[in-house]
Amino acid sequence: MADRGDDGRRIVLDWGTSSFRAMLVDGDGRVLERVDTGDGIATVADRDFAAVLRRALEPWGDRARGLPILAAGMIGSRNGWVEAPYVALPAGARELAAAVRREEVPELGTIRFIPGCTDTAVEPFPDVMRGEETQLLGFGLERDMAVVLPGTHSKWVRVGGERIRRFRTFATGELFALLSQHAFIARGAEAPAEPDEAAFRRGVEVALAGEGGLLARLFTVRAGWLSGGLRAAEMGDYLSGLVIGAEFREARDMGWFAPGEAVGVIGGAALARRYALVAEMMGLRPEPGPEDAALRGCLRVAAEMEGMA
Amino acid sequence: MADRGDDGRRIVLDWGTSSFRAMLVDGDGRVLERVDTGDGIATVADRDFAAVLRRALEPWGDRARGLPILAAGMIGSRNGWVEAPYVALPAGARELAAAVRREEVPELGTIRFIPGCTDTAVEPFPDVMRGEETQLLGFGLERDMAVVLPGTHSKWVRVGGERIRRFRTFATGELFALLSQHAFIARGAEAPAEPDEAAFRRGVEVALAGEGGLLARLFTVRAGWLSGGLRAAEMGDYLSGLVIGAEFREARDMGWFAPGEAVGVIGGAALARRYALVAEMMGLRPEPGPEDAALRGCLRVAAEMEGMA
Repeated sequence: MADRGDDGRRIVLDWGTSSFRAMLVDGDGRVLERVDTGDGIATVADRDFAAVLRRALEPWGDRARGLPILAAGMIGSRNGWVEAPYVALPAGARELAAAVRREEVPELGTIRFIPGCTDTAVEPFPDVMRGEETQLLGFGLERDMAVVLPGTHSKWVRVGGERIRRFRTFATGELFALLSQHAFIARGAEAPAEPDEAAFRRGVEVALAGEGGLLARLFTVRAGWLSGGLRAAEMGDYLSGLVIGAEFREARDMGWFAPGEAVGVIGGAALARRYALVAEMMGLRPEPGPEDAALRGCLRVAAEMEGMA
Repeated sequence: MADRGDDGRRIVLDWGTSSFRAMLVDGDGRVLERVDTGDGIATVADRDFAAVLRRALEPWGDRARGLPILAAGMIGSRNGWVEAPYVALPAGARELAAAVRREEVPELGTIRFIPGCTDTAVEPFPDVMRGEETQLLGFGLERDMAVVLPGTHSKWVRVGGERIRRFRTFATGELFALLSQHAFIARGAEAPAEPDEAAFRRGVEVALAGEGGLLARLFTVRAGWLSGGLRAAEMGDYLSGLVIGAEFREARDMGWFAPGEAVGVIGGAALARRYALVAEMMGLRPEPGPEDAALRGCLRVAAEMEGMA
């Protein structure tokens, strides 16, 4: 069988712009070994991805040698190792498996790169995701529902009938990082001893109240500091509430969800918690995704490839 | 008379965060001398504003000595020389003149600091302006209309009956600067040989079309580049159109103007032209302010002070 080791073991890579993860997985999907490093594709010198991968797998010795390798994330992008072109929606495990790109690599064998997805219906330019599609597969695509994947470039997605149906990217995380690090309006902000949920909620409430949008709300960080209404240690979490609240508001106005609906939330613990909190504030029923959503998704694609073999 | 030289000459300062301007003005408001430097209040060492001002006025010698000095802008803020507390709206020349703060300075005489304004009706924190109030006075406050002052922190203002009635700050310019300098979504952008009005208009059209807001629109810069729909030299002006278009959209939704209305536009030539263009695209009638709006406003305050003397 071409797609897995004799006993079903394989190596799964979740290799993004700023992080690298390799997992040695058995035939039942259990993780036997795991390594996380900061060797994201943006850090790899001379595009020598093979060297990075060999070094990462070396400690596993013979246990890893000759196993099939499946890779998801930005490693399969134009800036990565091998470009696996985007698959058009609607797409599920079958469409992704059919578009997997294979590459023979000396000493490492065959690596299979899972493609990203494109939503060509988005105006004025097709939207793209890469990495989130495997997380969505791991979350499950059976029910017709909205799923949000918070991050530097958050995704709002409609899934259902075992397919990703449409999605849209929001630049929320990138904007928050720029504003909290560089903006005059956030000058004077101090890091709180621990995340300030009350300040975060306050920001969300301001984002959701009244008319208008984010541009008019952002200056309230400065105005709050000037007027004494916001303490220095509250400014960062209040700003976080403003931008995440604005994302939900935009998503609602664009029809991504309706009140009372369930919404999947897939992401790191701290950020997923904030998104779930806003979902509740908007009358939604947040459903957290599994922690290992990306791995589950990769194994779904692998199973599909085996079915096609 | 305390507020002007015997022949009506005076010195007017327009002293902001990043720029310094001094004008020697005659009794008819004509500018006899003028100096512009980068000595904004953020650059002044040890808060020695007097040294900066003495140095700037030195070349004018006896012509400047002993003249009354009127100062507008951030120099009158908490981070400036002397804090002239914000005046609550509604406010016009009379209210500003009554709240001017005087300071005796060795070798320079009396300096009068024009206060900024605060709109305490803005939720959740009072909004503030400092410097724009004199530009608005110079534009004229007779007619009931909307006025926009583009900039790092744009202001939308309703004026009428010789008063500034209410306003709101939009962080548009600051956001654009951060995004174009630092954002991943704008990576690959190249400066065009000259401003690309078509790309700007395209960004405005995208900002105004459909539902949702800025967060969902921002990623179209990246998506346009990836799909070949935007050239590298178009990305910056397209992004400019997205954010300025978003500002107008928010301002409309918040009721700052209605279709067909006149809207004043006060600002530097290049930016004012862009704002006027968007105003026209939204069916408004843009009315440019006079180039010397700030000076005219200062002289209005001076005239009011004389009337009260």
